[in-house]
Amino acid sequence: MKAVVYKGPRNVAVEDVPNPRIEAGTDCILKITSSGICGSDLHMYEGRATVDPGLVFGHEPMGVVEEVGEDVALIKKGDRVVVPFNVSCGFCFNCSRGFPNACLTMNPKQAGAAYGYVNMGPYRGGQAEFLRVPYADYNCLKLPGTAGDQREDDFVLLSDVFPTAFHSTVLANVQAGSTVAIFGAGPIGLLAALSSVLKGASEVYVVDMIPERLDKAKQVGAFAIDSTKGDPVEQIIEMRKSNKILQQALRPGEEKMIGVMCGIDAVGYQATDLDQPEHERSNVVIDDLIRVVNPTGHIGVIGVYLPMDPGGIDPLAKRGEFPLWFGKLWEKGITLGTGQAPVKNYNVFLRDLIMTGRVKPSFIVSKHASLDDAPDAYERFDKRESGYTKVILKPEKAYI
Amino acid sequence: MKAVVYKGPRNVAVEDVPNPRIEAGTDCILKITSSGICGSDLHMYEGRATVDPGLVFGHEPMGVVEEVGEDVALIKKGDRVVVPFNVSCGFCFNCSRGFPNACLTMNPKQAGAAYGYVNMGPYRGGQAEFLRVPYADYNCLKLPGTAGDQREDDFVLLSDVFPTAFHSTVLANVQAGSTVAIFGAGPIGLLAALSSVLKGASEVYVVDMIPERLDKAKQVGAFAIDSTKGDPVEQIIEMRKSNKILQQALRPGEEKMIGVMCGIDAVGYQATDLDQPEHERSNVVIDDLIRVVNPTGHIGVIGVYLPMDPGGIDPLAKRGEFPLWFGKLWEKGITLGTGQAPVKNYNVFLRDLIMTGRVKPSFIVSKHASLDDAPDAYERFDKRESGYTKVILKPEKAYI
Amino acid sequence: MKAVVYKGPRNVAVEDVPNPRIEAGTDCILKITSSGICGSDLHMYEGRATVDPGLVFGHEPMGVVEEVGEDVALIKKGDRVVVPFNVSCGFCFNCSRGFPNACLTMNPKQAGAAYGYVNMGPYRGGQAEFLRVPYADYNCLKLPGTAGDQREDDFVLLSDVFPTAFHSTVLANVQAGSTVAIFGAGPIGLLAALSSVLKGASEVYVVDMIPERLDKAKQVGAFAIDSTKGDPVEQIIEMRKSNKILQQALRPGEEKMIGVMCGIDAVGYQATDLDQPEHERSNVVIDDLIRVVNPTGHIGVIGVYLPMDPGGIDPLAKRGEFPLWFGKLWEKGITLGTGQAPVKNYNVFLRDLIMTGRVKPSFIVSKHASLDDAPDAYERFDKRESGYTKVILKPEKAYI
Amino acid sequence: MKAVVYKGPRNVAVEDVPNPRIEAGTDCILKITSSGICGSDLHMYEGRATVDPGLVFGHEPMGVVEEVGEDVALIKKGDRVVVPFNVSCGFCFNCSRGFPNACLTMNPKQAGAAYGYVNMGPYRGGQAEFLRVPYADYNCLKLPGTAGDQREDDFVLLSDVFPTAFHSTVLANVQAGSTVAIFGAGPIGLLAALSSVLKGASEVYVVDMIPERLDKAKQVGAFAIDSTKGDPVEQIIEMRKSNKILQQALRPGEEKMIGVMCGIDAVGYQATDLDQPEHERSNVVIDDLIRVVNPTGHIGVIGVYLPMDPGGIDPLAKRGEFPLWFGKLWEKGITLGTGQAPVKNYNVFLRDLIMTGRVKPSFIVSKHASLDDAPDAYERFDKRESGYTKVILKPEKAYI
Repeated sequence: MKAVVYKGPRNVAVEDVPNPRIEAGTDCILKITSSGICGSDLHMYEGRATVDPGLVFGHEPMGVVEEVGEDVALIKKGDRVVVPFNVSCGFCFNCSRGFPNACLTMNPKQAGAAYGYVNMGPYRGGQAEFLRVPYADYNCLKLPGTAGDQREDDFVLLSDVFPTAFHSTVLANVQAGSTVAIFGAGPIGLLAALSSVLKGASEVYVVDMIPERLDKAKQVGAFAIDSTKGDPVEQIIEMRKSNKILQQALRPGEEKMIGVMCGIDAVGYQATDLDQPEHERSNVVIDDLIRVVNPTGHIGVIGVYLPMDPGGIDPLAKRGEFPLWFGKLWEKGITLGTGQAPVKNYNVFLRDLIMTGRVKPSFIVSKHASLDDAPDAYERFDKRESGYTKVILKPEKAYI
Repeated sequence: MKAVVYKGPRNVAVEDVPNPRIEAGTDCILKITSSGICGSDLHMYEGRATVDPGLVFGHEPMGVVEEVGEDVALIKKGDRVVVPFNVSCGFCFNCSRGFPNACLTMNPKQAGAAYGYVNMGPYRGGQAEFLRVPYADYNCLKLPGTAGDQREDDFVLLSDVFPTAFHSTVLANVQAGSTVAIFGAGPIGLLAALSSVLKGASEVYVVDMIPERLDKAKQVGAFAIDSTKGDPVEQIIEMRKSNKILQQALRPGEEKMIGVMCGIDAVGYQATDLDQPEHERSNVVIDDLIRVVNPTGHIGVIGVYLPMDPGGIDPLAKRGEFPLWFGKLWEKGITLGTGQAPVKNYNVFLRDLIMTGRVKPSFIVSKHASLDDAPDAYERFDKRESGYTKVILKPEKAYI
Repeated sequence: MKAVVYKGPRNVAVEDVPNPRIEAGTDCILKITSSGICGSDLHMYEGRATVDPGLVFGHEPMGVVEEVGEDVALIKKGDRVVVPFNVSCGFCFNCSRGFPNACLTMNPKQAGAAYGYVNMGPYRGGQAEFLRVPYADYNCLKLPGTAGDQREDDFVLLSDVFPTAFHSTVLANVQAGSTVAIFGAGPIGLLAALSSVLKGASEVYVVDMIPERLDKAKQVGAFAIDSTKGDPVEQIIEMRKSNKILQQALRPGEEKMIGVMCGIDAVGYQATDLDQPEHERSNVVIDDLIRVVNPTGHIGVIGVYLPMDPGGIDPLAKRGEFPLWFGKLWEKGITLGTGQAPVKNYNVFLRDLIMTGRVKPSFIVSKHASLDDAPDAYERFDKRESGYTKVILKPEKAYI
Repeated sequence: MKAVVYKGPRNVAVEDVPNPRIEAGTDCILKITSSGICGSDLHMYEGRATVDPGLVFGHEPMGVVEEVGEDVALIKKGDRVVVPFNVSCGFCFNCSRGFPNACLTMNPKQAGAAYGYVNMGPYRGGQAEFLRVPYADYNCLKLPGTAGDQREDDFVLLSDVFPTAFHSTVLANVQAGSTVAIFGAGPIGLLAALSSVLKGASEVYVVDMIPERLDKAKQVGAFAIDSTKGDPVEQIIEMRKSNKILQQALRPGEEKMIGVMCGIDAVGYQATDLDQPEHERSNVVIDDLIRVVNPTGHIGVIGVYLPMDPGGIDPLAKRGEFPLWFGKLWEKGITLGTGQAPVKNYNVFLRDLIMTGRVKPSFIVSKHASLDDAPDAYERFDKRESGYTKVILKPEKAYI
């Protein structure tokens, strides 16, 4: 079968690899109909992570069940399903407590596994024609409709970005009536904005520097904060201060809560300073969040931070360490949540919301491409070319 | 000043009573601009509760601060405020744990106090020109704008029905993606539907028998279930069973969850059977909820049930006892939450959502009337006359 | 192999039945070393439930893994394990949300399955020499030590009664500093008392009428309330009222909270009135809890209530309906939690507490018996003979 | 009256200051019977914070009500009470949501106020003969018994250290069966260990370098880790690895959870490296916690970190910034909670536990001293002299 294979820094190729096969009675084989390229794939693509050439990329898979092992109970050939990026067993100490993101069974190296990702276990990725899914009963979310129908782009986002974005709103304690600041308007940031609005947030601020992303933030009902126009924290505070209705409702002392209650980092360790966009400053977003989040508030960090980063810009960054304004965090009594999303905790509910038409996350999908076009798509996505913010690969041309 | 005074069963009059005055340094006096008539006022109006004649009715007050005691810190003359129906101290064991609905200080008879209500403490009601508010700093929620402006009808609902309805969704554990069944499409039921949608519920079913109420339920995005057309539980289940998209997404075994996860009783003890609408059957709604709510689900009972009801239809009902299908509740492992809402826990967030335009609860307000017209309004409301589902009294004619 | 087989009302026999075998790659076979008799076995034994003769009883199994299917990953031959009474898949909508007690996969009739129990799926029970355990990776909790060692009696209680008792404290919201009233001092009630003390409750009251049970309640640090000496609710309140230290700490109004914050029903539907101990009155315990639990409190109902009970004493009881003082429950704003325990949520933590010596639940075990003696043990247990409150069957005589 | 007055770095004096008086109807005046010296008082004593000379120290006050304002409802002259270190109004946005530690009313400079503390509002401290307590109804916790009785030392710890320690276990998510590592065995660390045991933790590790502190940790049931004997993280892991019982219970993959689930920082920003005890390294404890806490775990930081620290050892520290191993925190998906404790959320429950004899926190009290001896006590405490780990000042010699 054809698959997107890592060859070396900034080099992927579409090659023939052996078809996957049922290895255990609990496996299934998926015929892929859609497969997202994720921002985190670029960490590997850029050669920053030490990936062995030959790895098949892709952890956002969706498709139709081609074959099931003899011990699979709830999934059968022909079922349309989407699969979480986390590969999880469902029965270990962490999975059974609700943390499939930290599965202890599937990855000998550490807690948590994923398809097609460095250090995340021996799983081939889903940017291919077929994919082996272990523990199919636990990992397959069943979908209505037929492959390639009008919800295909919505459903494929259930593998990673939509539940991941939703998880950030859980980490940040977004509730009905919350005020929320989201840094980063990539796919995760935009869907975090959508999730915040869905949950009844009263004010959502989205910070980015790219106009088309900010426009999308506005479409879901958020306020757009253009960080090229000045300190985003000051902009948010200024916007709240100049809101007359809001100011009239304040009682004495409440001006100390002029920031927001919930902050979300949807950028991660490759954050840069405004004045030096070529120069990484990994702590800039978290420190902005510490400044803008009110006392007693919550920060959810869904953007990726690496425990070791040989490509880091200074000795601290290479060790995964960052100077944070921790004293301020403590003074404010902020709670900070981190880590990869437990996709399975949310994907069934988000699927139902897509099914009833309450949300349509596919507004972030900017491009469909065939598997053969993956190398070109990676190159353009890596250059942040317009129109390549979210690419969905289609192994079968019929579905493009 | 003028006030709505209880004279006897089905008899209220607008009479002159002495103006309230500051009795403690922590009090304030409110000049009432809007004051709702509540369904629970009818329990007293109908003579079913043993109310002493002379009681001033009204526990949904809103207005402008006329005077403050010398120890009031955050509220000042001229502030526009709305006040929870619960009269609470803010510092007792219950208030300080987040249960102002069960304040231990304000009512010598039991936990919890309210304005203008039998057994709920010695507080005169707010269907009057002025109202004394104890512990003004704790009880007054500050509002933007000016008395009588375009948000007046939205804001007055913050005193009771909107936070009460929202509380029912908390008791019923409504979350993003939840399925919800609400029995009763009066003001509480409709705002419970609005609250459910606000929080991201995927399916909301509202049961009632009055077409205009069902129409309003549809307006907020709910499915209307007309209980005159058959067993509402069967109707909900049938609607879910005949939803092809939903059925295609089910895996084997999930047909056991064909009901909903969240059930809300917005009717209370005066529920009646369909076939005998004149005959109270207090347990009919709760038993329907036990039937329609799925295993592991939640039921929130916000409709009022009385611990003692001399007007009850049989000896059990007179003692506040009802035969419930408890064995089924237990088998399903359902959690059941009850009681009056802690309005202060929610009103600030709901105010913010009104301020930002995210919600507009005033769609349930059907009628404005002057204080002088209160007797007529009570009579028509008691008869469930069309157009009198939610009446707001206006002591000053300017605001009608 | 030998097994305890139901023959008819009040009649069990030890008979030869075929050995269980691996039926799916995810199964394992357990050689039973200990197997509890549960109070809920008596519901079947007494002929009250419509059990087909031939059913092998036993849902409290523990033993050593004899054989594993080829897809079992974490459990191997020779492992010492204990198994939850709930038979669960681990991957359905309910299991993966933390409700293995309501598994949708294992029982075609309803949510939730169990070994050797009527209506709970086609699973043979564990009062036998061997047991087939489906989804072994999910259902087997690994234990240290060797079969029959000094912790055997503690560990076997992890299959049902200890986690079930612990769950009741979760339903009742027992926290550090809580006041708790537990009705029933059978195995569940006593371990609910132990669990409450473990979690830091400040006062625990245990109600029963049997002196030896009340003595055990005292041993774990609870106050014993002998219900033969008068209304237990009045006794608890009187005890709290006459506690001078407690009274001195009360502020005005707090006398309204003279009951307890947490109530636990460890009796179930076969509750009887004191003055008519032969006459079931299923609602007596819940109504006592409604009386004794304070406003804003919680009630956890872990005692079993049946949705249908042909042997009930009146038409209501036959339908699983009970007249409850619901009006009082509502007035107090109490939350009520019900249902079977999700054993797997707790058993790993309770095992760790046994391992470190922090708790020793085996104080409730009153009798060991060989499998052959099961008929005699059932008969005596059914008669509530002294010394038969908790019997553990031992298929191998070496372990008695 | 006499009071402990700050004169300048390492210089306090007992001086005559004017008696406090009722300033608002909601105030009360306390006659102090016990008043703790806190580790955080040393931050000011050492001249590290910019304190204006003349400040009266003391935020751990307890005593007898001498006088109440005319609007005080629940507290009266003669009541024995203890007061949280947080000065709170009870009615602002933060207090009424359960965050009296971030009160918006009482401190014009920032959220949160305290007695006798720099930047925490204009409140004179409680190391004096009398103290004015604002909002007496909210802030006074009533106590049984009489001044100076056998529970005096237990009760005075309810003002700060016991609830603060308990709060750290809430931040760290300590539950029944939890494994806990606590860094620092000062009063907070020891009471965090006590609180963890109270809540049912299965293993508690306490790290310190002072033998007498480690002995006390053992007394409450914790394992003592002497950090002078090597890396404490490696010691904890080694201890768990060499626990045969524990190892026998592990299933494959669970060795990745060989650390603990809950980590508590009871040291704060003045942490030092072992090999350079004179050299502050503020991030050492948090980084140790990041290493020792398992994936999906929680860290509670109760030790103080300052947002600005002119006395810091390097430019980063002066700005309250510390390099943290954030990449590892993120990889593990740890949740981190911070900030001052909301004492009122816990003190009533902890009082009840003292009253019933379940806990006796006074084991940490090492010294009683008269007010006159305060300068000497401060000097010795600052030098970490043996026997001065927790000093309680007694304005009246009768109570020493």
